[in-house]
Order: sequence, then structure tokens, then C-alpha cells
Amino acid sequence: MLKVFGDHNSGNCFKVRLLLEQLAIPYTWIPVDILKGESRTPEFLAKFPNGQIPAVEFVDGRRLTESNAILNYFADGTPLLPEDRFERAQVLQWMFFEQYTHEPSVASARYIVRYLKRPPEHEKVLQKRIAEGLEAIAVMERHLTNNQYFVGSRYTIADIALYAYTHVAHEGLIDISPFSAVSRWIAAVKAQPRYVEMGAAQSS
Amino acid sequence: MLKVFGDHNSGNCFKVRLLLEQLAIPYTWIPVDILKGESRTPEFLAKFPNGQIPAVEFVDGRRLTESNAILNYFADGTPLLPEDRFERAQVLQWMFFEQYTHEPSVASARYIVRYLKRPPEHEKVLQKRIAEGLEAIAVMERHLTNNQYFVGSRYTIADIALYAYTHVAHEGLIDISPFSAVSRWIAAVKAQPRYVEMGAAQSS
Repeated sequence: MLKVFGDHNSGNCFKVRLLLEQLAIPYTWIPVDILKGESRTPEFLAKFPNGQIPAVEFVDGRRLTESNAILNYFADGTPLLPEDRFERAQVLQWMFFEQYTHEPSVASARYIVRYLKRPPEHEKVLQKRIAEGLEAIAVMERHLTNNQYFVGSRYTIADIALYAYTHVAHEGLIDISPFSAVSRWIAAVKAQPRYVEMGAAQSS
Repeated sequence: MLKVFGDHNSGNCFKVRLLLEQLAIPYTWIPVDILKGESRTPEFLAKFPNGQIPAVEFVDGRRLTESNAILNYFADGTPLLPEDRFERAQVLQWMFFEQYTHEPSVASARYIVRYLKRPPEHEKVLQKRIAEGLEAIAVMERHLTNNQYFVGSRYTIADIALYAYTHVAHEGLIDISPFSAVSRWIAAVKAQPRYVEMGAAQSS
């Protein structure tokens, strides 16, 4: 069976789990605790040289890393990834925005608060990440004010990618409640068929 | 004609120019100076709300941002983007590695040295970026030791994405000469048909 190496509290790992659940693709979840260095063991690095999760291993031994690349692989040919060439590029545009601009601020703030327990020496960085995170969410708000979802007026993997850390942004002290379009969109994602909560035990 | 908003000395912008030149796609280059705030003017933000370059605008008014999303759009259907589903995912894997791990270290070190002129107050961050950049290049070296290119044994947009800042890493005081596989690969990219140098005047 397909193996997914991940951490249930990681937004990047949650993206993969949510998609696999929504597509009803069976998998075995293999917990990896990055705080215990489990993604940096010689065994893990031999399989995945970049030492990051999520990572997947297929039955035939092929492997893939980078959450958004994994989403593109599994969503290909399903309604969650458009067939139109321009819409596919728009999906990628939002996914690169997520990894380059959104995740390094929104997820970093959450990491400092939730994982590192907000140590005083990280306070200056935390405040910077919160400010950057609010800017990233403002970009999303402007788009969602005129669009129901990120691409093509329907739920796609671009929504999954951006939802993962946005819906737990408050855990990094980023308050999204003033962003009404983002808040409406979060509710719309939660209402999707076969939605699962982050951090929950796997169902398959 | 297709408009490309960019800076000739930006690696992210160079990716787009190199691909368009190699595919012989005509375009008009519109210089944008980020240091002068030209990507943050009301006019630019009205077109591109994330305020970043490169950005492209098609004749019909459609727009696209994020260098690697732009590469995927134009390379689709050409030999520079594989048709195989798994190989396409591998291309994205390396492109997300580039934007999440490689660019924030290798390009940031170059930015501090080349654009900010290495101010003393940035020295600690610079040294951190150099160390992280060397780690990212070591990941590339391990892959290229057993592979001629990043995906499918041939030149693809994954190579363009990673080449852009790697080949000028020395401008950020990152010495890639000890990495023999990376050095060999850089020469192989330079030898591709219709290759153009970064920073050069546009040919079309």
C-alpha cells in the first residue's frame, strides 16, 4: 500500500491526508516526529535526501516529496485539478504563493507558538512573521472577495494547499476573523465531501 | 504581444526569459525596479496584487505570476516539460524545493551582498543564508551525482528553475566549485540550444 510519512499536526502533511481521504485513495500513515529528529536519521535521508515531510513511497519503490508536488500527482485526472492549461498554471501560481510567501510566515508563527512555546528570544521574529502572515492573508482576501475559490470557481488543490495553514493561523496568533471572504471560504472548504479534520486519527 | 514584467538581474525573472528565448516565444520585456518600489505602485498592485516579479500579461489581458507557475504554463506541450504524470510531479518536486529551500537561502545571500552591499547589521543573517545555501546545493549534488539532469535524464524546466540562482551563487559568497556534479550540470545547462546569459539585453 502507498506509504505516507508525516506528522498529523503539520499543515503540509495534512494537505496530503485531506486529498487522499477526499479521493478515497488507501494509504498507510507512518508518523515522523521532526522534533525528535526522525526526518534526519540516516535511514530517512537515504530515502528522502532533503529530510522533509510529507514524503510518499509507492508500492513499486518510487518516492515523491514536497506537499504541493504530491497534491498535483494525486489530483491529476480528478475534478480537483483542472484540465485547462491556464487554470492549471493558476493552481500552481497559488501553490507557489503558498510555499514562498504564505507558509514561511503563517506556519512559522504557528511553529514558534505551538512547537517552541513562544520563547522570549523568538518574540521579535514571531511579530515579524505575524505581520507578514497578515499581508499574505490580505492577498487571499482580495482574491476571495471576487471569487468563491482560488481557481475556476470551484474547489481545487490550490484551496487545499492554502487552507492547511490558514485554518489554524490563530495557533500562531494570526487573527483571520476580520477577513470575511477568507472566513467564508474556510467554511466552504470544511463543507466539502469527505472533509477530515487536521490532527485526527486516519480513517483508512 | 506577451508582456513580461521583470528585472534582468533577478534569477526568478531570468528563468522566464531563458525559457521564452529557448522556446522562441516573442515577448516585450517591461523593466521593473523593485528597489525603487516599482512593484508596489498602485498601478502594479492593481494588476498583480502580490506585488512581485516576474509577472506576465497576455494580449487578452489574462495575467500570471510566480516564476515556476509561468515556466509550467509555457513549457506545457514542449520537450521541456515531460508528459508522464510521475515525471511532471518530479519536476514540481524540484521546483518547490527551489522556492522553499534553495531560493530563500541562495538568492537571499546574493541579495544581501549584491543589492544591499553587505551591511554589517546583516552579516549574521548572511552567514546563516550561506550555510543553508550550501546545504541546498549539497542536496542537488547528491542527486546530480547519479543523474545528468533533475528529471528523466534530460533538460527540463526543473533545471531552468534551479539553474537561475545556482549559477550566480558566488555573488552571494556561496562557493559551488567543490560540488563537481553541480559544476558539470551548470556547464550542461549553458550548452543548451538558444541559451542566453542572465542580465543580457533581450534578443527579441
